[in-house]
Parts: sequence; C-alpha cells; structure tokens
Amino acid sequence: MSDDDMLDRSLTATAALVADRQVSPVELVEAALRRIELIDETNAYISVLADDALAVARASETMIAAGHRLGPLHGVPVALKDNIDVRDRPSTAGAKILADHRPAADATVVKRLRAAGAILVGKTNMHEFAWGGTSANPHYGSVTNPWDTTRMPGGSSGGSGVAVATRSCFAALGTDTGGSIRLPSALNGITGLRPTIGRVPNTGVVPLAWSMDTVGPMARTAADCAVVLTALAGHDADDAGSADRSAEDYSRDLALGVDGLRIGIIEGYSLHHVQPGVEKALRIALETLTDLGARTTEVSIADIEGNISAQLTVEAAEPSTYHQRWLRERPEDYGDDVRLLLEAGELLLATQYLQAQRYRALLRRQTLAALSRADVLVCPTLPFTATPLGEVMVEIIEGAPEDMLSAIMQFTGLPSLTGLPAISVPCGFDDAGLPIGVQLIGRPFAEATLLRIGAAFQSGTDFHTRVPPLVAPG
Amino acid sequence: MSDDDMLDRSLTATAALVADRQVSPVELVEAALRRIELIDETNAYISVLADDALAVARASETMIAAGHRLGPLHGVPVALKDNIDVRDRPSTAGAKILADHRPAADATVVKRLRAAGAILVGKTNMHEFAWGGTSANPHYGSVTNPWDTTRMPGGSSGGSGVAVATRSCFAALGTDTGGSIRLPSALNGITGLRPTIGRVPNTGVVPLAWSMDTVGPMARTAADCAVVLTALAGHDADDAGSADRSAEDYSRDLALGVDGLRIGIIEGYSLHHVQPGVEKALRIALETLTDLGARTTEVSIADIEGNISAQLTVEAAEPSTYHQRWLRERPEDYGDDVRLLLEAGELLLATQYLQAQRYRALLRRQTLAALSRADVLVCPTLPFTATPLGEVMVEIIEGAPEDMLSAIMQFTGLPSLTGLPAISVPCGFDDAGLPIGVQLIGRPFAEATLLRIGAAFQSGTDFHTRVPPLVAPG
Repeated sequence: MSDDDMLDRSLTATAALVADRQVSPVELVEAALRRIELIDETNAYISVLADDALAVARASETMIAAGHRLGPLHGVPVALKDNIDVRDRPSTAGAKILADHRPAADATVVKRLRAAGAILVGKTNMHEFAWGGTSANPHYGSVTNPWDTTRMPGGSSGGSGVAVATRSCFAALGTDTGGSIRLPSALNGITGLRPTIGRVPNTGVVPLAWSMDTVGPMARTAADCAVVLTALAGHDADDAGSADRSAEDYSRDLALGVDGLRIGIIEGYSLHHVQPGVEKALRIALETLTDLGARTTEVSIADIEGNISAQLTVEAAEPSTYHQRWLRERPEDYGDDVRLLLEAGELLLATQYLQAQRYRALLRRQTLAALSRADVLVCPTLPFTATPLGEVMVEIIEGAPEDMLSAIMQFTGLPSLTGLPAISVPCGFDDAGLPIGVQLIGRPFAEATLLRIGAAFQSGTDFHTRVPPLVAPG
Repeated sequence: MSDDDMLDRSLTATAALVADRQVSPVELVEAALRRIELIDETNAYISVLADDALAVARASETMIAAGHRLGPLHGVPVALKDNIDVRDRPSTAGAKILADHRPAADATVVKRLRAAGAILVGKTNMHEFAWGGTSANPHYGSVTNPWDTTRMPGGSSGGSGVAVATRSCFAALGTDTGGSIRLPSALNGITGLRPTIGRVPNTGVVPLAWSMDTVGPMARTAADCAVVLTALAGHDADDAGSADRSAEDYSRDLALGVDGLRIGIIEGYSLHHVQPGVEKALRIALETLTDLGARTTEVSIADIEGNISAQLTVEAAEPSTYHQRWLRERPEDYGDDVRLLLEAGELLLATQYLQAQRYRALLRRQTLAALSRADVLVCPTLPFTATPLGEVMVEIIEGAPEDMLSAIMQFTGLPSLTGLPAISVPCGFDDAGLPIGVQLIGRPFAEATLLRIGAAFQSGTDFHTRVPPLVAPG
C-alpha cells in the first residue's frame, strides 16, 4: 500500500484497522517517518523520535498479535508540540534556553497518550516559548504552510498544524493560550479543539500565560479529535488548575447531528471586520449547518470589545513573570521578538493586570448569558487567511494594514479569556486556495457538543479531506 | 431577668430558650439595644437598627407562639460588619465615600441569616474599607477595646469583635482578608472563624482583596460559630468564587472530642517571635489539648517566611484596582492612612503581584503536605496582645519595635494566602488582663474539625466565659 493511501485514512479508521490486524503499526510508523522527511522544508518538526517510534511500533504489533490492545490509539503515530515534556527526549519549547533540556518525566498528557497506545513520532516546531507576533522561530527555523510554502502556518502550534495537514501523523497535541491550537488548525485546514480550562492537565508543559494555557488535540476531523481528547481529559492531582471531574467519552455524541441546536451569532462581532473570502465561507458554513437542522439566533455580548486589550495584558504579564529570571540571566538567548514582548510585560502595573482580570469575570458572565440563549456561539477562527512569512502587518480591510499580533486574536480571545471550550473546523478556501476555519464556542465542559457539531458539519462537507499541494499525490 | 443574665447565655442556649418560649425575642432585642447604648463609648456600631429589630422581634414572637420557627437563629439578635449590604439601610464599609449608600438588595449572607430567623440589631464599625494599618477610623470614630478602652480592638472587624465581647449581640458577622475576623476575635477574647475560601458567598459584600476575602462568624464559643456558619455556608450562583458544594451541619462533630487528633506545630514558626505572655498561653493551651487526648507533632513548611511579603503585595494590588476610580475622583474622602496604602498599591508591577500569586501556589502545596501529617496546624492568632490606640509600632521582642501592619499579620497570613479555614479561640490572658487567642488551621472545607477542637478546648477551659471590665456585672 502506498504511503498516500495509508496516511490518508483518518485516525479513527486507522486505529480500527490496526486493532483488526489489517494495518501494521510498523508500516504506519515507517510511512509517517518517510512523510516527515518529505516535508522537511516546512520545519514542522524540531526532533523526530524515529528509533523510539520504531521500537514501540514493533512492540505494539507484537501486542496486537497477542490480542493485547492498549487503548483506542493503539499503534497510531502522533506528534507533540515541543513544549510538552517527553522523558529523556529533547523538549525545547522552541527556545534556545531549553535546547539541552531533557525532562525527568513525561507530561501527564504524554503518559495518557502512551497508555492509550499512541506512538510518538516527533516533537513539533512552534513559536519560541509559544509567544511572539510572527511565526518566525530564530532557533529552529520558521515553519511554512503546506498550502503555500511562502506563507505562515499560524501559531504557536504551527508545527503540529503542518504535521497533521501533511499526513505525517494522525493527530498532534498543541497548546492554546490565546489561540495557539485554533489558529494553526484554521490556517492549515485541520480540526483543532481548545478544551475548557482545567479539563486537560498542564503538568509537564512549559507555561506561557497560566491562567489561559491548555493542551488540546489537533487532527483532521472532529471524530479524530474526540478520540484524542478522551485519552487526554480527566483530573490530575499534580495540576492545581485541573478540574476535579471524571473523564468522559467524547465520541458518544458524534452521530447525534445538529437538529434543533441553536447557533448564536454575536451581534456586531461574529461577521464583522473579516476578509471577504472569510465572510463568504462563514455564511456558506452557516447555511450548511441550518440545512443539517440547526437554527441560528442572534445574541449580544455587551462588552466584547475589550477582549483584545485584556488578552494582550494577561499575555504580557504572566509570561514576563515566568520568564523573569531567565530574562535577567540569559537575555541574549531569546529571539528579539519574544525578548521585546517579555520586557514590555515587565512594565505593566499590577492594577492594569487586575483590571484585565476583572474584565474577564465580566466577559465570562456576559458570555454565559449569551450561551443560555444558544447552544454554541459561532465566528471565524481568525479574520484572514495565511499571510506571507515574516509579515507583521495584515490587511483585513483592503488598504488598512493592522498589527498582526492583535488582529490574529480577534476571535480566539473570547474562549481564552473566559475559559470556555472552542473548536476550529475547516469551512472553505479563499480565492488563493488557502484554508479557512469556523470557530464554535461552547458552554463549560461541553466539548462533546462542539465535536458533535463538527462531525455533523464534516459529514456534509469535504474541506477536511483536501490534501495540501506540498504532499498531494502525483 | 436582668440584662446581664439574659445576655450572658450562649447563642445556642438562647436560641433553645426562644424555641421553647421561655425567652421572648422582644425582651432579647430590648436587652441588646440597652447594651448597645451602654457600650456607646466603644464606637462598636456605626448604625443601630432599633426599629427594624423591634418590629422583627415582635413578629418572631408571634411566629414562635404560632409554632412557626424559622430556623436555628430564630429570635436571636446578631450584628453585621458594615461592609455587608442590608437592603435600604446604611452600609458604609466604614468609609465616607459610602456614607449615603443604601443597597438595593441584601447580601447573600444577610438573606441566609434572615431565613434562619436571626434579628439584625446593628451594623458594626470597622477599618475604612476594611483596610489600613491601625484601628483608627477617621469617619465613624475609632473602636476601643472593652478589656481596656485605651487599647485597640484589632481589625478590620473590630466593631463585631467588641459587639460580641460586650454581649450586645449573640453573634456577629465579620469579613476576613488578611486576618480581619481572627485578629479582633483574639484581641477581644471571643471565637471567630475564617471559612475556606469560597465556602461562604461574598455577594453583596464590599471587597478588599477579592482573592482572599471571605465572610465568617464571630461569637463567644465554637458551638455558637458552628450554628451561624451552618446558616451562612453553601453555593451561591451569583458569586463566581463560590464553591459548588452543598451546605453541611457544622454542629455535627462538636461533641466528638479531640482524642487521637494530631496538632501540627510548624517548626521555627508556631512558637517563634511572640511576646512571652502569648507563648506561655500557647504552651498551656497545647497541654490542655493533649490532656484532652490530642497529640502534637512537628511539621515543616519550607518557604513560610515569604508569607508576609506576599500578603502585603496581594493586599496592595487588589484593593488599589477596586478603588482606582474613587481614588481619582474623590481622593479627599479617604482617610490619610488608607489613601496612602491605595496609592502605594498603584505602584506595584504586574510581575510583582504575579510572583506573589506563584508563591501562594507554592505555599499552598507545602501547607497541604504539612496537613497530610497533621489534622490541623497551630500557632497564636497574633504574636502580641492589644496595643495602645493609635500606636503604629509594636514590641514583640522587648526593645525592638516593629511596624504594626506586617507584625499583626505574622500568623494570620498563612490561611489567607492558602485559602484554608482557620479559627481563633480564646486561650488565656496576659499579665495586664488582655485576651490571647490560639489559631488552628484546617484542611480545605474542614471547618467542622476546627469547630470540634474549639468546642473540646472550651469544654476544658473558661476563657470564653470571662466578661470584659467595661460590661462586667456589679
């Protein structure tokens, strides 16, 4: 079987074939490793765990032959963002400062992936310490977008986005503070979920802004994300921010459809200040969902306008606190971009930070009120498609360039600030063939509803099946 | 029956007599109002709700006669710190800025007290906005200590402490951020409990530092505090910080005694840097508890030394954020003491505040580890007894005066920073006849254990029965 055929199947289908002994974990890993080599120019991976993965694949194959299936990810190649600790293996967080870091223990999410049978094929590239205004990484090379390698893949989990889009793994973990799972998911044409804050443990993950940080799944479909999230979620006593809730099966509602569900459009926000191609794709996506049985309804969030400023404040203050000692001792080891942001964060006053936190509490109350009148809220994942690499400005409205850092957070900040779950689902392409994502925002711990809507949408569309030109079969 | 006889009974005994129609709520309220007049010189009350209280007392009497008992506080006079909203009644928070404030709704705790049958006799005096380094209130007069009216009663719930100590009510509500329930409880010879953060709702309470603020009961005995806490505790959907736990009966374990309980003495902390009279009382209290069957054990909290600095940082940044607008618009309406503290808080950097928050997380982990080797931790409530009014320095070690604001928080900061419950129980008097309190710190939501130990201690001691000279009979 060709690599294209083997790698093009979904995670869910592949896992079933492995369980059935129709596909060998060793062949899967070999195909994934060849694909990783093929996409070398994208810089998607910082390190490839080839020997580990092959050894585990052989053992997985033996186990499956002996009737011993570890779990729903048994034998499936997955990748991890490089700020997630893997015991004794490079875990750089995209930073020179951690170039030689070899963690003493796996992150909790890594333990859980291993327990579910996943095979770790590599650690993916990312913004330095998951922070910064552009996708450029001065230490490990900038990640490029497989839909157009002159463009950025988004971040900070850009490597994970590219790794999944190019079929070099069946799912990848990302981390999301202000949008870092959802943005590269949208820009690379894949599905990515930011869970409710506290749903997935952060133990063993390098923090950015700890009041918003969370790990989450990135995969080609909502159904694949559901399998991975089921493996990741659940209480972790080692993480003080972990929610004391038991695990659940996120695949359970996937086939329920969207009949009767209310999709809230936020007045003056959900379809405002976006590129025409993005608006068009969104409107068609809403038609698809209503054709499938959902209803749209208009809701309002009175103080939503403050969200970008609040997010920039929190993302300035918390990283600058975490990095304070390194910034004193090793300033030259940071890229200019990140060092400048960290230095700026040190100038913020406590009252500025705390006013942002008070705003978050207000925004959460208003958003929960809107979610009492709708099952989910909808908007684009970001208001534009992939920009040229290194660009720090973006034109959302033609002829009116804006600063990239705040423009890119226009729609991802709401879930980040309020702690609510959100999913980005591929919903079209612009005239240049670049992917567009729709974001759905749910009630606390209602990930199953987001995945259910994503699955219904993907049952009626094929955007998630398209292959980027870089790896499109001959 | 004389006022002395009627008012000297415990809340628990009084509530039982009211239920039994042996004592009339009207007579109780009349006695309480006469006592409030008698202690006028202490400035313990900012407003007296005489007409309201008498009207409710008459209705309570009619109800009891009709066999209709509202709850465990039916007919019992209680007082409230003046930062707790009572609908349409003065609620000043000790501030000129709120002199004309008439809340549109009761605080949640007020609703709960009313539902349990309590009669509100007055609003008690306090530090301006519950903040400040001395007990002086420039707007409503300084509260004086009934054990020696030239001395301070502690704060910020000083009025509530004096109101209970002088038997002008059977219990009072206080609020505690850095020690504001426990300090006036210790300094006035009464029992006061700071609940686990989130256990009692803050809706309708003027905030000081919201990450540490909580309402709690102040009464003469642990048993009385248990009855009031049972009425106050429970989830409140209007308070985002409210713990989603059901109510419980805090009187249930009062008679269990302390046999086998382990009382943790924190190495290098619990008995260090305290006045000799306080140390002596503490050591005798520990002997009493071991005579009753408890065991003492030494525990360590490695980084406890940072607690005062962290507390001062949080108590600087959060109030300065809440007060920012008033401080711009009405600076002259603050007392000098509080205005200066609020202005100082505006100079703090976000990273300083966040380092304090990171320290809190560390301190909580270390304290919970200590509490896995002991059922409770013990120390004095504060390291000295009541100082002369207006004094801003205190001598803990003879000849070495220290700043009052940080010295008074030496032992109360640990529960405030970690969110753990703590009780202050009267445990003796110094050579000048001034009260001393012992503080017990419990595991999260283990208020019942603290109350149980307090009740056992009070079954073997009589410190809580002594009457201050100001209102001593004959």
